[in-house]
Amino acid sequence: MTATPPTLAALSAKNLYLQPLPPSHTPLPGKENFGRYMLSIPWNNVTGWGQATIEPRRDITVDPLSGVMQYAGTCFEGMKCYKTEEGDLRLFRPSKNFDRLKRSAARLGLPCEWDNDELVSLLAKLVSLESDLVPQYDGGNLYIRPTMIETGEAYGIKASPYASSALLYIVTAVNLGKALYASAEEEGKGIKLDACKEYIRAWPGGTGSYKLGANYGTVMIAKKPDFAMSLWVHTEGGEDYISEAGAMNVFIIKQAEDGALEFITMSLSNGIVLPGITRDSIIELLRKHGANEKDFPLDGMLRNIRVVERDISMSEITSSLADGSLKGMFGCGTGVVVVSIGQIQYDNQMYTIPHNPLVLLLRDTITGMQRGKIEHEWSYKVPEWKGVRAEAAAESKGNDEKAEDLAA
Amino acid sequence: MTATPPTLAALSAKNLYLQPLPPSHTPLPGKENFGRYMLSIPWNNVTGWGQATIEPRRDITVDPLSGVMQYAGTCFEGMKCYKTEEGDLRLFRPSKNFDRLKRSAARLGLPCEWDNDELVSLLAKLVSLESDLVPQYDGGNLYIRPTMIETGEAYGIKASPYASSALLYIVTAVNLGKALYASAEEEGKGIKLDACKEYIRAWPGGTGSYKLGANYGTVMIAKKPDFAMSLWVHTEGGEDYISEAGAMNVFIIKQAEDGALEFITMSLSNGIVLPGITRDSIIELLRKHGANEKDFPLDGMLRNIRVVERDISMSEITSSLADGSLKGMFGCGTGVVVVSIGQIQYDNQMYTIPHNPLVLLLRDTITGMQRGKIEHEWSYKVPEWKGVRAEAAAESKGNDEKAEDLAA
Repeated sequence: MTATPPTLAALSAKNLYLQPLPPSHTPLPGKENFGRYMLSIPWNNVTGWGQATIEPRRDITVDPLSGVMQYAGTCFEGMKCYKTEEGDLRLFRPSKNFDRLKRSAARLGLPCEWDNDELVSLLAKLVSLESDLVPQYDGGNLYIRPTMIETGEAYGIKASPYASSALLYIVTAVNLGKALYASAEEEGKGIKLDACKEYIRAWPGGTGSYKLGANYGTVMIAKKPDFAMSLWVHTEGGEDYISEAGAMNVFIIKQAEDGALEFITMSLSNGIVLPGITRDSIIELLRKHGANEKDFPLDGMLRNIRVVERDISMSEITSSLADGSLKGMFGCGTGVVVVSIGQIQYDNQMYTIPHNPLVLLLRDTITGMQRGKIEHEWSYKVPEWKGVRAEAAAESKGNDEKAEDLAA
Repeated sequence: MTATPPTLAALSAKNLYLQPLPPSHTPLPGKENFGRYMLSIPWNNVTGWGQATIEPRRDITVDPLSGVMQYAGTCFEGMKCYKTEEGDLRLFRPSKNFDRLKRSAARLGLPCEWDNDELVSLLAKLVSLESDLVPQYDGGNLYIRPTMIETGEAYGIKASPYASSALLYIVTAVNLGKALYASAEEEGKGIKLDACKEYIRAWPGGTGSYKLGANYGTVMIAKKPDFAMSLWVHTEGGEDYISEAGAMNVFIIKQAEDGALEFITMSLSNGIVLPGITRDSIIELLRKHGANEKDFPLDGMLRNIRVVERDISMSEITSSLADGSLKGMFGCGTGVVVVSIGQIQYDNQMYTIPHNPLVLLLRDTITGMQRGKIEHEWSYKVPEWKGVRAEAAAESKGNDEKAEDLAA
């Protein structure tokens, strides 16, 4: 599953080249909300990873027959950088994202070997340069989009299933927290989903558990205007099962017969659900709390809870709604963090899901960790970087050389 | 399914802008086999289709957060241009390809409305400029790759499922006919396939019947070194069914109990098989011949034949091999045209498929039509274009203006 013989150059943060913004920098119209810089690292199967560069955000230039243009050779991650009340920058479990990017890249035959510490170090420098842009309030953050594309030629029959060259790049965008997050605030309402059977997002043996561009562009047209997103439904043995909603993992909250409150989410075993990092974090926090191993970080979580990973059918949702055992439903992911699901349209009927205050508690816990209000090992503190001063110096003096010296 | 209100500008061949090659033109290293020119036509949802341009082949430049980079917003076609013995250029059913491109584009929310005659006219001009490069022998041709990419921004939650901007471009490559076609010549041997159950190419409700990049990049890693390509196998009700092989449609040739020779290929009904144009052509030729409506173009085709479109299981293949009723198997598509399948590895066993001379007859018929050796309405004769003279004039005199005048 790897295209990288060990003799090729490794990905390294050491020889970073920093190209500062020109003193005259002004963002292009329509691109004002993007981070001003981008990080990119080229790779090819002859020399391995090339020099990492942080430079002013620019277009990507590829051959018309490159893998990304022709055969959807692209995978990505979604991450966020937060600013604490004290003004330092935080990332949330960044190595988890880069592990998943490796897995996605391997699935596409793209380079998938690097030291996450090197990549986190480079990302830390990138976000440090944008520190002034990172909102310092709940819900605001700098959205980070690591992307790996196949730049090598790919058309017709290739002798090797592996890419000959690729580019890993990271761009950012300021997230003022006005979109989905805002609707998430309206607890008691939640978002409205359309259960979609016409388009199937993923299937066993496919790519649903990988964060490939191919999983996203192909289901765009399923979105209906009045709905926040689609709830993906697939049919097996005459039963409709749910998997994800839009690009979120989904949980239902259900009263079990033994008195426990169950948080049920789709298992990863059939490979049609993305192994979400927010999903994983919620499961670990709830499991440890339920098992009395480690208390949930915020007050208010019940003790008699249980996390269950298994399939969830639409008939389970409708019948547990009818008998009152369904106590809530939510989606989670980097974009939305945690958001209540308020309504589901399914088979021409609208189902209203009960509101559960634990959803808000979950969200406040995750966002609290992310913004460093709740101290936790999952929050990665971005170290100060002297390159930021170099950049500032270069910006005022137009002194590129100095920036380069200090960037190392 | 359309993002194009009728008030937007239509795709037009009228105002083509031709940018001739510079007199000093030399191909870049590693790109010598590519056509020297490319055709591109931008589109956006405010003004519609923009000016078509034919210019020296260049890289594509897109925003790092464009739909093609992030969400695999890309679809394509494969076509070929042939040179007849008389020296004129031919395309094979080009409108069929552009109809399929519309369908693929619609599936991705990309622009999908244009007059095929306009696009064929532009393509005809592009290939006219490359006329000197088109091989004039059987198996040689100019491979044509129309591609539509989403250039508009796509990340996070989009309000609309439709692209805001896109680019339709066409590039070409000289195909000397030394690759798969050559192995196809070795009749009696045929290509070797690996029946793959680990990776599933397509499933009902997915995108298997659309020519999306997403269907191709995601299955690259299934390819095993000793095999020409994978035979895609999916399991339903405990039975393994085949769909496509690599990027080809597949037929089996089987002796039916009533004495007819059946050409059986997977039905398009469940949406997991690409509606191939070679497939469609073969079906029509055989059906009309079998029904005594129109004779098969070359001598040697049996009269008592029948085309059947239905599912084909691996157990049908192995059992009809055992009882002798399997008379042959072949793949077809623009790339390979028609190629015998000689061996299939399935469940750790190698099956040898009998050679059938009708496969060669089918290939000779299709390639004969394509190269104009068999006259048929499916062969589109590229009209002469004065822009070619303009281009030549500009090349010798460096006179861009004259080229532009004549290009209209």
